[in-house]
Amino acid sequence: MLPEAVKKELQAIMGDQWVRDDQEALVTHSYDGTPMLQSLPDGVIYPASTEQVSQTLKVLGRHRIPVISRGSGSNLCGGTVPVNGGVVMVMHRMNKILEVDLQNLTATVQTGLNTKQFSTHIEGLGLFYPPDPSSMAISTIGGNIAENSGGLRGLKYGTTKDYVLGLEAVLANGEIIRTGGKLMKDVAGYDLTKLLVGSEGTLAVITEATLKLIPPPKYKKTMLAMFKDIYGAARTVSSIIENRIIPATLEFLDRPTIRVVDDFAKLGLPLDMEAILLIEQDGDEETVERDIQRISEICKAENAERTEIAANEEHALKLMTARRSAFTALARLRPTTILEDATVPRSKIADMVLEINKIALKHNVQICTFGHAGDGNLHPTATTDARDQEEVHRVEAAFEDIFEAAIRLGGTITGEHGVGLVKAPFLEWKVGPAGISVMQGIKQAFDPEGLLNPGKIFAKAARKRVVIEHG
Amino acid sequence: MLPEAVKKELQAIMGDQWVRDDQEALVTHSYDGTPMLQSLPDGVIYPASTEQVSQTLKVLGRHRIPVISRGSGSNLCGGTVPVNGGVVMVMHRMNKILEVDLQNLTATVQTGLNTKQFSTHIEGLGLFYPPDPSSMAISTIGGNIAENSGGLRGLKYGTTKDYVLGLEAVLANGEIIRTGGKLMKDVAGYDLTKLLVGSEGTLAVITEATLKLIPPPKYKKTMLAMFKDIYGAARTVSSIIENRIIPATLEFLDRPTIRVVDDFAKLGLPLDMEAILLIEQDGDEETVERDIQRISEICKAENAERTEIAANEEHALKLMTARRSAFTALARLRPTTILEDATVPRSKIADMVLEINKIALKHNVQICTFGHAGDGNLHPTATTDARDQEEVHRVEAAFEDIFEAAIRLGGTITGEHGVGLVKAPFLEWKVGPAGISVMQGIKQAFDPEGLLNPGKIFAKAARKRVVIEHG
Repeated sequence: MLPEAVKKELQAIMGDQWVRDDQEALVTHSYDGTPMLQSLPDGVIYPASTEQVSQTLKVLGRHRIPVISRGSGSNLCGGTVPVNGGVVMVMHRMNKILEVDLQNLTATVQTGLNTKQFSTHIEGLGLFYPPDPSSMAISTIGGNIAENSGGLRGLKYGTTKDYVLGLEAVLANGEIIRTGGKLMKDVAGYDLTKLLVGSEGTLAVITEATLKLIPPPKYKKTMLAMFKDIYGAARTVSSIIENRIIPATLEFLDRPTIRVVDDFAKLGLPLDMEAILLIEQDGDEETVERDIQRISEICKAENAERTEIAANEEHALKLMTARRSAFTALARLRPTTILEDATVPRSKIADMVLEINKIALKHNVQICTFGHAGDGNLHPTATTDARDQEEVHRVEAAFEDIFEAAIRLGGTITGEHGVGLVKAPFLEWKVGPAGISVMQGIKQAFDPEGLLNPGKIFAKAARKRVVIEHG
Repeated sequence: MLPEAVKKELQAIMGDQWVRDDQEALVTHSYDGTPMLQSLPDGVIYPASTEQVSQTLKVLGRHRIPVISRGSGSNLCGGTVPVNGGVVMVMHRMNKILEVDLQNLTATVQTGLNTKQFSTHIEGLGLFYPPDPSSMAISTIGGNIAENSGGLRGLKYGTTKDYVLGLEAVLANGEIIRTGGKLMKDVAGYDLTKLLVGSEGTLAVITEATLKLIPPPKYKKTMLAMFKDIYGAARTVSSIIENRIIPATLEFLDRPTIRVVDDFAKLGLPLDMEAILLIEQDGDEETVERDIQRISEICKAENAERTEIAANEEHALKLMTARRSAFTALARLRPTTILEDATVPRSKIADMVLEINKIALKHNVQICTFGHAGDGNLHPTATTDARDQEEVHRVEAAFEDIFEAAIRLGGTITGEHGVGLVKAPFLEWKVGPAGISVMQGIKQAFDPEGLLNPGKIFAKAARKRVVIEHG
């Protein structure tokens, strides 16, 4: 519960109705998109301006009350669960597109803006904002920035970080900083912009962002390729890129995922395949046609059983459904779906998928794998039941093995979902004790009292591993 | 001078001949590419491995001796001048290409590697490493990373930071960290990779880098457009991009630069023009031809006096010479050439050039302006004489006004050269006192004793300005 005096101070800043501590508000902000995590906050607030955020942080800082800023809470790492209580700061009221600058190809927005709404608005102006996380229909730009969200177009277009040119953010002490600007180049001091992107609400509350826009591609083509040999599919991924083609999308579905997706979406996918690649290229018509032609040849050379090129937009949409519906289809199977995002160099995808299958067998759990093959960014997804503690423990042990395998193959514990609560115990495996210590120093520099989204990124105790290889 | 005991410890690590404190070594490492700055170091060392760097930093840390790591010292911000003495650590012996991974399109190199040599090697493999700072014939990859170097291809391809996927670096205490990897996506904790790029040797000594390679463009076309109205040239820059074309290169030369360049390179440039744009597009043949056609139309619509499209490669090279020889041509005029890189939103280029001209007139100094118009990254270049103290003071006053104008137009004090010594007093104008304080906190987290390249980025005293607008 919020002390009455604090509540009064917050109400004076935002108005009575934007400071809530009723049970409904507390419960609905006690969890996020991550399964099996819940913790009640002491209050929920809805600032309407950067000035209100600043004043609020000063009040909360004086009272040593933690603050968890969030958008729609669609993250999958427990990033916005208020594990240490405190105040959840919902950014939804700060949802304005402040400016679209057609000369500089930038947009400046408040961070509570919905991603899809922004993306659609930009497309309406004949421009393109590429980041397309699966959550974009409900997520906010601020949430995408906090987690450095990826998406299906990451291979060719990069992730959220590549489109953030400048930020306005409020520090723990209430001071407002501005980083970058409508500038393609800026090397004035340390790169606070890129540091804040992906900092998961632990360094500052990001209130405004200047985003880079690009010209949209003029033409697009979609195809599927199906393989009986998973290594054939994996070699195809590398081979496409070795052939100097960077597709806009290069997605992978393994056999268990194919079955589940086909059962859900009735696409008539062949169920005897070990892997499907979904490939999309965009750009100028001649280039796209040539690339798709060449990709078909590569698929055949790697013994694809079948390739299917979309004849029209409707057909393309149907093919995309195979990938877009993967999570939804899997979520129908069992009460609880845990989706992870272990990432490896793209040459190691087949090895990683086979590791995942071995690990699933060892722990007797059901794991389907799909993901962004071109980025080496896989989503091993466990279907389980949160009420079955024993099974959940097995799932957790399996994911521990999966993270370990990803690191062993030169990869990382998270490619696009963030560390949050869920992967904090494993961070040291990736960055080493010296890396953790440097990151803690950065956290200390921004937030000496540890009030911004506490309990995230840095775990109280790291998981031990038999083999630790850090220089 | 190095204390004899320290010298012995360093010799034990690197071997006698790689630890120097003779006058020749000290003098040749007392300056860098920046005019009018010189300060003798106490010693110069040449480590051959990361392990040696680590041991050296431990020794120097114990004795509280500053260390200035550098490549070829081609920077233009005084970034590697040993202002507080200490040991200059030359990275040239660590110059190996450790691996080119064709499946993942990455290269892993030691940071003392020459940029041009690397770039040429990669082109020989049919691949492309886009960053092309003007200094690339002598600069090192490590120097490029330390300064986040740009170049002529920045508009379309980005700068050094966009190509650094992972780093190995040695912290001030000698600990070795590894960040990122052969990974297109990695959100495991704060982004130390992007933070270290552009940190100017003040946070760690970077020993190894994993770089992203891309497929090379298949076709290229070059053109010049000449304008009697500087606003016409500037509007053309914005208009090209508003027309959804992102050229590979979009360079600008003002009238004084045109005269000097033509006198130097005998290109037959028309001397009555206020501005020339040099434009290059690359990609697939059809796309390039269409883009160049459209750009010509835009130039005409903005009242270009003349456009010239290169008929062949030789012709293209000749056109490129107009831009590539700008610095050399200017350097012939007077004994001292000071090149700056104030950067503004691209829509403000004409305003900025006119501001520069006004400022030059006000201070009675000669300033020519050329640069990367597409990035808004201008190089106002003063030709002067270091022996004339009074004139040099006027030049400094002019640059102070130029930085102030850039900030006022929504720009920054440096787009690609870094802060170093030269722009440290102005950093606060861009990032505000709160920004400075956060950056100092980061510095403190990495280098609590302040031994890594001291005296850079953070000035003892910031320049005061009448108007300070920071939220």
